[in-house]
Amino acid sequence: TAQNILSEMNDMDTAAFLEELDAKECALAFRLISKEKAADVFSCMNSKMQTFLVDMFSETELKELLDDLYMDDTVDMLEDLPANLVTRILKNLDSTKRSTINKLLKYPEDSAGSIMTTEYVTLKKTMTVKQAMNHIKEIGIHKETIYTCYVTENKRLMGIVTAKSLMTSDDNENITNLMNTNIISVHTHTDQEQVAHLFRKYDLIAMPVLDSDGCLVGIVTFDDAMDVMVDETNEDISRMAAMEPNEKTYFETTVWQQAKHRILWLLVLMFSATITGSIITRYENAFSAVPLLVSFIPMLMDTGGNCGSQSSTLIIRGLALGEIHFKEIFKVMFKEFRISLIVGSILAAANGLRIFIQYQNFNIAIVVALSLMVVVIVAKLIGCILPLFANKFGVDPAIMASPLITTIVDTCSILVYFNIAVHVFNIVV
Amino acid sequence: TAQNILSEMNDMDTAAFLEELDAKECALAFRLISKEKAADVFSCMNSKMQTFLVDMFSETELKELLDDLYMDDTVDMLEDLPANLVTRILKNLDSTKRSTINKLLKYPEDSAGSIMTTEYVTLKKTMTVKQAMNHIKEIGIHKETIYTCYVTENKRLMGIVTAKSLMTSDDNENITNLMNTNIISVHTHTDQEQVAHLFRKYDLIAMPVLDSDGCLVGIVTFDDAMDVMVDETNEDISRMAAMEPNEKTYFETTVWQQAKHRILWLLVLMFSATITGSIITRYENAFSAVPLLVSFIPMLMDTGGNCGSQSSTLIIRGLALGEIHFKEIFKVMFKEFRISLIVGSILAAANGLRIFIQYQNFNIAIVVALSLMVVVIVAKLIGCILPLFANKFGVDPAIMASPLITTIVDTCSILVYFNIAVHVFNIVV
Ligand SMILES: [Mg+2]
Ligand SMILES: [Mg+2]
Ligand SMILES: [Mg+2]
Ligand SMILES: [Mg+2]
Ligand SMILES: [Mg+2]
Ligand SMILES: [Mg+2]
Ligand SMILES: [Mg+2]
Ligand SMILES: [Mg+2]
Ligand SMILES: [Mg+2]
Ligand SMILES: [Mg+2]
Ligand SMILES: [Mg+2]
Ligand SMILES: [Mg+2]
Ligand SMILES: [Mg+2]
Repeated sequence: TAQNILSEMNDMDTAAFLEELDAKECALAFRLISKEKAADVFSCMNSKMQTFLVDMFSETELKELLDDLYMDDTVDMLEDLPANLVTRILKNLDSTKRSTINKLLKYPEDSAGSIMTTEYVTLKKTMTVKQAMNHIKEIGIHKETIYTCYVTENKRLMGIVTAKSLMTSDDNENITNLMNTNIISVHTHTDQEQVAHLFRKYDLIAMPVLDSDGCLVGIVTFDDAMDVMVDETNEDISRMAAMEPNEKTYFETTVWQQAKHRILWLLVLMFSATITGSIITRYENAFSAVPLLVSFIPMLMDTGGNCGSQSSTLIIRGLALGEIHFKEIFKVMFKEFRISLIVGSILAAANGLRIFIQYQNFNIAIVVALSLMVVVIVAKLIGCILPLFANKFGVDPAIMASPLITTIVDTCSILVYFNIAVHVFNIVV
Repeated sequence: TAQNILSEMNDMDTAAFLEELDAKECALAFRLISKEKAADVFSCMNSKMQTFLVDMFSETELKELLDDLYMDDTVDMLEDLPANLVTRILKNLDSTKRSTINKLLKYPEDSAGSIMTTEYVTLKKTMTVKQAMNHIKEIGIHKETIYTCYVTENKRLMGIVTAKSLMTSDDNENITNLMNTNIISVHTHTDQEQVAHLFRKYDLIAMPVLDSDGCLVGIVTFDDAMDVMVDETNEDISRMAAMEPNEKTYFETTVWQQAKHRILWLLVLMFSATITGSIITRYENAFSAVPLLVSFIPMLMDTGGNCGSQSSTLIIRGLALGEIHFKEIFKVMFKEFRISLIVGSILAAANGLRIFIQYQNFNIAIVVALSLMVVVIVAKLIGCILPLFANKFGVDPAIMASPLITTIVDTCSILVYFNIAVHVFNIVV
């Protein structure tokens, strides 16, 4: 039967299957799912289907769902629902849950508080392993994770006990002896990127979140930390390509939304690029005297842009992963300078030689080679300095990527190139 | 005492602390770490320090370390050690471990086999919860994870039991009733990117890896999957900035290595960009007649490049996350076409108007506006088509990013621009 098939499938696949159905069928099929699975499947569905289902549910069905849905998933759902459904849901919650939800909704976007959940296991210092295991057997099924348990005293976090140590210790062992008091925790207002960073560094399954009084108020679990890692990378990659970040996938956004996310930077960069253009017009005499000069402009601009982007990309990623810090700016600059000497020499030699062979014109070969060398050095230095300073002054370094660097380096390239050309060819401008 | 401080710190921080010491002090301090912690701390250290310590260890110390080190971490270490130390380590392993290690070392780079470990818990169908818990209590301490247990029959994976279901079920319950037979698993040769993708989709703590006969041969754990996510993103971001990917961090690579990773694409792109240059020389008559034409070249080239990069970046990321597929190419093209109509119109209008006001020259305003419109459409289409085709033909789509797209779009921009200009100004070329 359909019921059997649905009960065999795992939650994620069930949700994906339901999303393929039309709204009516989805509601019918959802009612076939066993009560224990329903909330888990629901939390895997996209917000469009969630909205539809909530709208269809009777008050009883809604109550049952809300009972089993973890707090973080409830909050995620509420953030995407229309106002009338949010009101209906809040009405169906008991007052404790409602006040928790209201608290969670108030945490700043992308903070630890906004991604944490409140279903965790607390133990007491005075318990034995046996008592702890019995406690978990009773209440564990409704907890988001039971693999990391929290020893609290008046809501304060005293230590952490893993399920592994409970399962491999003697029944009469005391929790105090098993708990780890060297706790890695975050504050409700810690940025989610920092949370994900700590997860990866310390290989955690769950991370306790403390409020300003130092009381345990929630946990973030590893699966949500993985999603944060992807979201934060998406944000960086979007910014690095001159787009405003966007939490939705490509097909989930409309054409107008996409246009809106792309147009601002395109306008800014387009008008910035006209500066380079107006500098070129200042050297009209130069390219009237030696028209061949114009033909190397794209090559110089592109190479400068590419060199700068390479450096800025590495620095931006290094900053995001916490592998590079502002205080290392001189170390970075010196490294990029040495790299640009090697890379610049090779590019200059290769292209100078080609030009000399192709055009039998030594002067133009020298002008291009020399310009390349200078442009590469300047580009690499700009490419590493800008992201570091952005980071220092609280601007997202991801903005200092290819598009902006290219535009800035363009102006430098043109200036360097025509200045060298004017000198070598003795042109009056 | 130092010993107390070291025992209080967690493994990761201890490793970071030891890495700060010089080689001699590090070896001394490492010997102060308790035997239970030593292997965990060792696996957190960088390969430079690992090499040093292995070199310093006596045979007994080496044996003790290898006894406690998980297989995946042993393999990771061996991959970075000099040949003489590898031989010494293999000599110190018992024959079972040695043959396992030799098998693991043979799996292709970036495959599930190369990142899996072999310390997992197997249970039997016939066990009760009580028997399973006793079994875990006995052998669990030496397993990488005990939170996902594998029910096997003649090495074949029959089902999965979570520690959560064991801990929350009745002692006399049978494992057969608890196990989930809807198993998500990978093959030893599955690409690690796909493994990480499944971890994120299904929120797994560990993933079973099967060999070609369908036998369970290892597991990948969530912490290693997180590292894979970051490594794969690093790879993509490097390729997207025209660099060869590199597993080491910025400061871990030498200047020569960095230059080597950057020069190839710079050379390719530099010589490709000369094509654009030689096209420009074909229109010498045009910019001799209307010198102002030259000044809009950088703006057109940059805008085209930026538009193309925006599209290609979104498609590359969407492909990497499995959100976009080749079969959706027409859907993507149609979407990008509509976006480029909106974005192109705005850019053309804004810049056309500015040029008309600044130069009081209607013709040049029309030429630039029209060119912008066409360039934006062409750039967005190239930007979305190339990564999709790369993916289709087994090339890493990340190569089809900003640098290459910019170079290709440049040529198109120049052709479009001068063709329109030649017609509007009636120039003979
Ligand atoms: Mg969110
Ligand atoms: Mg949220
Ligand atoms: Mg880690
Ligand atoms: Mg969650
Ligand atoms: Mg979740
Ligand atoms: Mg952020
Ligand atoms: Mg960020
Ligand atoms: Mg590893
Ligand atoms: Mg490996
Ligand atoms: Mg997930
Ligand atoms: Mg591991
Ligand atoms: Mg890969
Ligand atoms: Mg890849």
